[in-house]
Amino acid sequence: MRATAIHAPFDIRVEDVPDAAIRQPGDAVVRVVRACICGSDLWAYRGEAAREPGQRIGHEFLGVVEETGSEVSGLTAGDLVVAPFMWSDGVCEYCADGLTTSCVHGGFWGSVGSDGGQGEAVRVPFADATLVKLPAEALSDDRLLSALLALSDVMGTGHHAAIGAGVGPGTTVAVVGDGAVGLCGVLAAKRLGAERIIALGRHTARTDIARTFGATDVVAERGEAAVAAVRELTRGQGAHAVIEAVGTEQSMRTAVGITRDGGAIGYVGVPHGSGTGLDLGEMFNRNIALRGGVAPVRSYIPELLPDILSGAIDPSPVFDHAVDLEGVPGGYKAMDERTALKVIVKL
Amino acid sequence: MRATAIHAPFDIRVEDVPDAAIRQPGDAVVRVVRACICGSDLWAYRGEAAREPGQRIGHEFLGVVEETGSEVSGLTAGDLVVAPFMWSDGVCEYCADGLTTSCVHGGFWGSVGSDGGQGEAVRVPFADATLVKLPAEALSDDRLLSALLALSDVMGTGHHAAIGAGVGPGTTVAVVGDGAVGLCGVLAAKRLGAERIIALGRHTARTDIARTFGATDVVAERGEAAVAAVRELTRGQGAHAVIEAVGTEQSMRTAVGITRDGGAIGYVGVPHGSGTGLDLGEMFNRNIALRGGVAPVRSYIPELLPDILSGAIDPSPVFDHAVDLEGVPGGYKAMDERTALKVIVKL
Repeated sequence: MRATAIHAPFDIRVEDVPDAAIRQPGDAVVRVVRACICGSDLWAYRGEAAREPGQRIGHEFLGVVEETGSEVSGLTAGDLVVAPFMWSDGVCEYCADGLTTSCVHGGFWGSVGSDGGQGEAVRVPFADATLVKLPAEALSDDRLLSALLALSDVMGTGHHAAIGAGVGPGTTVAVVGDGAVGLCGVLAAKRLGAERIIALGRHTARTDIARTFGATDVVAERGEAAVAAVRELTRGQGAHAVIEAVGTEQSMRTAVGITRDGGAIGYVGVPHGSGTGLDLGEMFNRNIALRGGVAPVRSYIPELLPDILSGAIDPSPVFDHAVDLEGVPGGYKAMDERTALKVIVKL
Repeated sequence: MRATAIHAPFDIRVEDVPDAAIRQPGDAVVRVVRACICGSDLWAYRGEAAREPGQRIGHEFLGVVEETGSEVSGLTAGDLVVAPFMWSDGVCEYCADGLTTSCVHGGFWGSVGSDGGQGEAVRVPFADATLVKLPAEALSDDRLLSALLALSDVMGTGHHAAIGAGVGPGTTVAVVGDGAVGLCGVLAAKRLGAERIIALGRHTARTDIARTFGATDVVAERGEAAVAAVRELTRGQGAHAVIEAVGTEQSMRTAVGITRDGGAIGYVGVPHGSGTGLDLGEMFNRNIALRGGVAPVRSYIPELLPDILSGAIDPSPVFDHAVDLEGVPGGYKAMDERTALKVIVKL
């Protein structure tokens, strides 16, 4: 089959690889219908995250079950399914707590020895626990497929940030980061009843989506100026709930600066850089909490799926550029050069 | 009147100062009956926290109202009251949220121009909002007075840490720090229904109190060995809720290491040192939350007071050394040399 592999920084290739196949009785093989490129894939692309030469890549996909192992009971060939960005066994203590990302048998698509999402098919371990069935009708609805694909990562990750930040009815929320996750954070905050949502971003195309998703204010400034602007909008206090969807020291510093005393930062931007950007003394004096991390999106799908199916939320606008499988390398280039917000791969 | 002042590191004096007096119509003057020395006072004592020469010191006290300003309506001369370690106006937005430590008119006893708790009397701003009345009978009960004095800081601070750490029925809790706040954290965790409480500490006198307060296990190791020991006790997982009551980089590193994936650290140790001790990458991968800060103890008194009066909780054992007012300098020395856990001042 054809699949995407990364051979070196900036060397992404679509190439022939061994067909995805059942190895364990709990496995399923899923033929990919939609995949996408994640902001975090760019780290490998740029050489900021190490990869083995030839390692597969892509961790977001939905598709049709092609084959199931002997112990798979909840899925049959032909089912349309979405995969969260990690697999999980569904039975360990962490899975029981809903923290599927800490599953003792969990793993990432594209890790060494595993299929990646940006390919024709994927072997899915613990298929019953990992995959979530979607209505077959969605297959003929291109927009809906895009919206559902967001459940594999960005929508659930934005939701995780909103939960971590303590978004609830009546809260004022600020969102640091205008990538797909930040935008989904806006959508999640709106869904959770936020009264006011301040989106930080300077790319009009992105902040326009933020407004569509529910942002009431946009702040284009950065750093100290952004902190001042958010405080200006909040009578000097800052936001009750801050979604941090970047992961740099500067973004974390901004997040602390714009959080209201007693508020919380929901952080889902994978931390990079040598420092944390956290001023623990300021956080201490102002009782600012920090909650978040790698999002257990599998656990959120049952809650978010009905709202996507009903149209109550529609994250599909985060996909602003489409390619076919052979076009994936060009998709990376477009995202790296920021000419695309998030690239969808249609197979 | 006589009161304690700090003139330079290690130069604590009890000396004649102007009498505490009403300045604003909302003030009260409280004649101090019990005060104490806090671990955080030692920072000024050791020169690690800057103070103006001659600045007053002490932020924990209870006593009898001597005089009230014209606008004080809820208190009269003769009332026995306890003061939280900060005053607050009770009406600002933060006070309305219960975050009295962020009160827009709040302040600390012993700040420049204010009386400190380690003296004969204290001028209390916003007396109606700041002070909490205690039953007069307590005046004749030495043990109960000690227990009630803990409401001014350490008991409420331990409770804040337990809340921040997410302690609840059935949780496994670990407590980093065997000072008075850590011990009160044990007591607070027990009160909140923790199933298992692991106290980290190597001073038998202190860990014995921890056991009295509800600790089920004691870990004497430090650093990496402490992390290994707590993991050993928790089937490799760590504790759901970790109370951090030290504030050093090492204690924070230990706290992260012993927190179960998806758990939280409630931190109340005032951060000191140049770094945070936080490995944000590890916290991200394991979804470890950090919540806490300077404790709004005023807000917790109404909840904790009945349990102290009923005897359901008794924090008085944290006071293991008593002095009179003139003995305060010796009290600092005893705490600095760790021959005393926490010194009570009886006037």
